[in-house]
Amino acid sequence: MTNSIFTHRSIRKYKNDEIPANIMELIIEAATRASTTGNMQLYSIVLSRDENIKNSLLSCHFNQKMVVEAPVVMTFCADFNRFTLWCKQRNAKPGYNNFLSFFTAAIDALLAAQNACLEAENHGLGICYLGTTTYMANKIIDVLNLPQLVVPITTIVVGYPDETPDLTDRLPLEAIIHYETYTNYTENSINNIYQQKENMELYQNFVKENQLETLAQVFTDKRYTQKDNEFFSEEFLKAIKRQGFMP
Amino acid sequence: MTNSIFTHRSIRKYKNDEIPANIMELIIEAATRASTTGNMQLYSIVLSRDENIKNSLLSCHFNQKMVVEAPVVMTFCADFNRFTLWCKQRNAKPGYNNFLSFFTAAIDALLAAQNACLEAENHGLGICYLGTTTYMANKIIDVLNLPQLVVPITTIVVGYPDETPDLTDRLPLEAIIHYETYTNYTENSINNIYQQKENMELYQNFVKENQLETLAQVFTDKRYTQKDNEFFSEEFLKAIKRQGFMP
Repeated sequence: MTNSIFTHRSIRKYKNDEIPANIMELIIEAATRASTTGNMQLYSIVLSRDENIKNSLLSCHFNQKMVVEAPVVMTFCADFNRFTLWCKQRNAKPGYNNFLSFFTAAIDALLAAQNACLEAENHGLGICYLGTTTYMANKIIDVLNLPQLVVPITTIVVGYPDETPDLTDRLPLEAIIHYETYTNYTENSINNIYQQKENMELYQNFVKENQLETLAQVFTDKRYTQKDNEFFSEEFLKAIKRQGFMP
Repeated sequence: MTNSIFTHRSIRKYKNDEIPANIMELIIEAATRASTTGNMQLYSIVLSRDENIKNSLLSCHFNQKMVVEAPVVMTFCADFNRFTLWCKQRNAKPGYNNFLSFFTAAIDALLAAQNACLEAENHGLGICYLGTTTYMANKIIDVLNLPQLVVPITTIVVGYPDETPDLTDRLPLEAIIHYETYTNYTENSINNIYQQKENMELYQNFVKENQLETLAQVFTDKRYTQKDNEFFSEEFLKAIKRQGFMP
């Protein structure tokens, strides 16, 4: 058993090889060992391998090919449905159709997802998170038949890697850590934090390819624009409401 | 290096021993190795050790003593402040004052938190998540001086364990996994899923101590009531708005 925390790379190209059932079971069990609010396990994992389902999920994830190329797609959902059904069968009055309960279940789902990823990588598998899950929650709800009180939070694709990317750069640790309380950044500290990234050839090429002035503009003007963020904010809030979490 | 995924227990009693600086650094580095949206690292970690700060945090966490007894309290925050400041200094127009951006940053913060927990446990440390973070986000914002576009998402206490609790029970794997699409639960499947838990002496004592009829009622009537959930939903939404994520 290895420790994959420090060797994680997102994998975007996969071999055809299936994942053995015993390893798949360990991945799911790993997910369930994560901390969970009041031991309620407020998540479900939808594991999709069927070509038709994966093809339907493909367009939910902006046609990223790894959705169909990886053997397994795991959609991690905030799930208060199971717990609520149990309450109703046990003469208990559930009160989980609200935003806090949604967010609590989302936390549970994300901790479970990260455990699943690390365990998959411990067995030589690769994973990639699909951030498109929240953007396209409404369509995913349709494709996966998610009932009330179930909202997709994140998706991972899992399979044997067919590429060996380098470890991705990260900001220096001092960029993300604050001691005792939050110390806001100064113009100087922002310059220092981002200097290394901005000097990397990889990112300088991003700027050139996009014919922009700065790396930050690649994010604001191309990858994560205000317009898209506002549009998908409305969509995701609609999904949360539609699933009964904001009455 | 061990693998702590399958041996995690939440620790609620801690020794006084400090955490060595090199191990603390590994924990923080582990957090930064988690997947992060577009490699933006949309989180900050506030690491509090000072007695005064920990005492202020204590009441934010419903006076759970481990907040002052554990040597380190780590508050994981969704943080679009740093990234937004960088954009502004680089002639880029940030558009991250919206709900999707908040949720994206929360995902980043939670994946980082789970990596930190597992790495801490790999070094013989214990951790406990504090779900009270979202309940009391407004007060935590005040105590930790969190600026606009920074919202606390979860907190972990970290230290050397002074107890050795048993592994916590979990629902059977078939309770949380769905194949291809979501299969809703039946009366029978709910009974099967919760049977083992309901038969455990631990939980039967919960029911007796609370003079209730069913275990589900312990959750709905005592631990996670509709009234509290609705109150703290409003509070948490206020915090998200106050920090500039829902204009």
